[in-house]
Amino acid sequence: MMSGKAYLIGAGPGDPRLLTLRAVDALRESEVVLTDDLVDPAVLLHARHARIVHVGKRCGRHSLPQEATTRLLVDTVKRGAVAARLKGGDPFVFGRGGEEALALARAGLRFEIVPGVSAALGAAAYAGVPLTHRGIASSVAFVAGQAEDRVSEVRADTIVVFMCQRTIAAIARELMDAERSPATPIAIVRGATWDAQEVYLGTLDEVAALPAQWWADLDLTLPTLAIVGEVAQLAGALAWKTQPMSLWPVRVAAAGGAR
Amino acid sequence: MMSGKAYLIGAGPGDPRLLTLRAVDALRESEVVLTDDLVDPAVLLHARHARIVHVGKRCGRHSLPQEATTRLLVDTVKRGAVAARLKGGDPFVFGRGGEEALALARAGLRFEIVPGVSAALGAAAYAGVPLTHRGIASSVAFVAGQAEDRVSEVRADTIVVFMCQRTIAAIARELMDAERSPATPIAIVRGATWDAQEVYLGTLDEVAALPAQWWADLDLTLPTLAIVGEVAQLAGALAWKTQPMSLWPVRVAAAGGAR
Repeated sequence: MMSGKAYLIGAGPGDPRLLTLRAVDALRESEVVLTDDLVDPAVLLHARHARIVHVGKRCGRHSLPQEATTRLLVDTVKRGAVAARLKGGDPFVFGRGGEEALALARAGLRFEIVPGVSAALGAAAYAGVPLTHRGIASSVAFVAGQAEDRVSEVRADTIVVFMCQRTIAAIARELMDAERSPATPIAIVRGATWDAQEVYLGTLDEVAALPAQWWADLDLTLPTLAIVGEVAQLAGALAWKTQPMSLWPVRVAAAGGAR
Repeated sequence: MMSGKAYLIGAGPGDPRLLTLRAVDALRESEVVLTDDLVDPAVLLHARHARIVHVGKRCGRHSLPQEATTRLLVDTVKRGAVAARLKGGDPFVFGRGGEEALALARAGLRFEIVPGVSAALGAAAYAGVPLTHRGIASSVAFVAGQAEDRVSEVRADTIVVFMCQRTIAAIARELMDAERSPATPIAIVRGATWDAQEVYLGTLDEVAALPAQWWADLDLTLPTLAIVGEVAQLAGALAWKTQPMSLWPVRVAAAGGAR
């Protein structure tokens, strides 16, 4: 009864090889794993002896409410089990890990936080976009795309907008209404670090002007993240995993002609 | 001659178990490793067959200039070797990985970016400070402490200041001069995720008022990072690795009395 413990684990951005050694050890030790849906099945293979429970809400799929997940985690550890709570990215960056950790702490239970490679870092690395770069960007901010109206309050040389497939056009307009130039480069990374990764390069005004149908046609199961700032244009030179595509292919084909 | 390749690898914040599986594979494959000084020797053990070259500048130690490191990396890969460039944290967050990747791309050489757990994420996890938290913080920014005068231009609910041992008092004053309340909580994390990790909790005005001698007495070999924002006070409840200390021990001992 006294041996229960929770691991809040960042599973990384998608590529299962971006799991940390610490996470592997914690999964091997775990008897129960509560996992987000977006976590790659290959990550779950490390949890050989565990019962796997899918709780994760992502990309509009049916899922357990956060409160129910937190309660399940607390109850599992209270019964004396070693439980892993597996989250995409990092548990303390838009992962609601703080809420789960607080519930564990309030119940007097043992826990450990295992940080992970945030989706922002995975997208940056696999798309070839340094988040900071000498002479171009000395600060970077992460903000959630759901909080559409709050994005323009954020100030940093580079802004990474998480979970923004439905909101990125509105956010691009917000940023232009605030202080950002319409010509500010933007990289839209879908399924960052996954085999299916797609990278689109453009500018804020191009994103704002894209027809709604363009977004509607995209596969909703790939999580979408945008990197806004001068660094985004470095993807043209630094892409090594997937060739970036233009948001306005016709314009690129016309070599800078009118769109 | 044609088989050369570079891996730009994030070694994580300090704890060698926070290395990714992808990084382990890349190190095993490498013939030469160019490493930062702050990388734990246990990380280098994965590079069994490699010649290890220490190039890293950190915490005031003597080191190779960035340009010389970049040239050494390019020349090594040009000669056909598989080379790993090991950096603390993540290569694209204050790691100058973008400069090295650009040099490799310009030389027409193959490279791959292996993202790592940024020091900000490691410090947050091991100090018990969620960088975002529902109702408290929906955005987080990373900024380098050397760019002291630029920190107050950054706007986000949570601000993580990297490499700030010498500048944090001035930065605290800057932030108060800008928009931040003097009562804003701050967590100063030294040697994040290391066995020697130290966490100090206080407020912006307390940091600004600390005597210069306090900073001078601190061990310079531990990298220092500050987390500014309401989330910092959660460390009181969520610390699981090391007990946080107060910046003003006397004040805490007097249970809120005058300092």
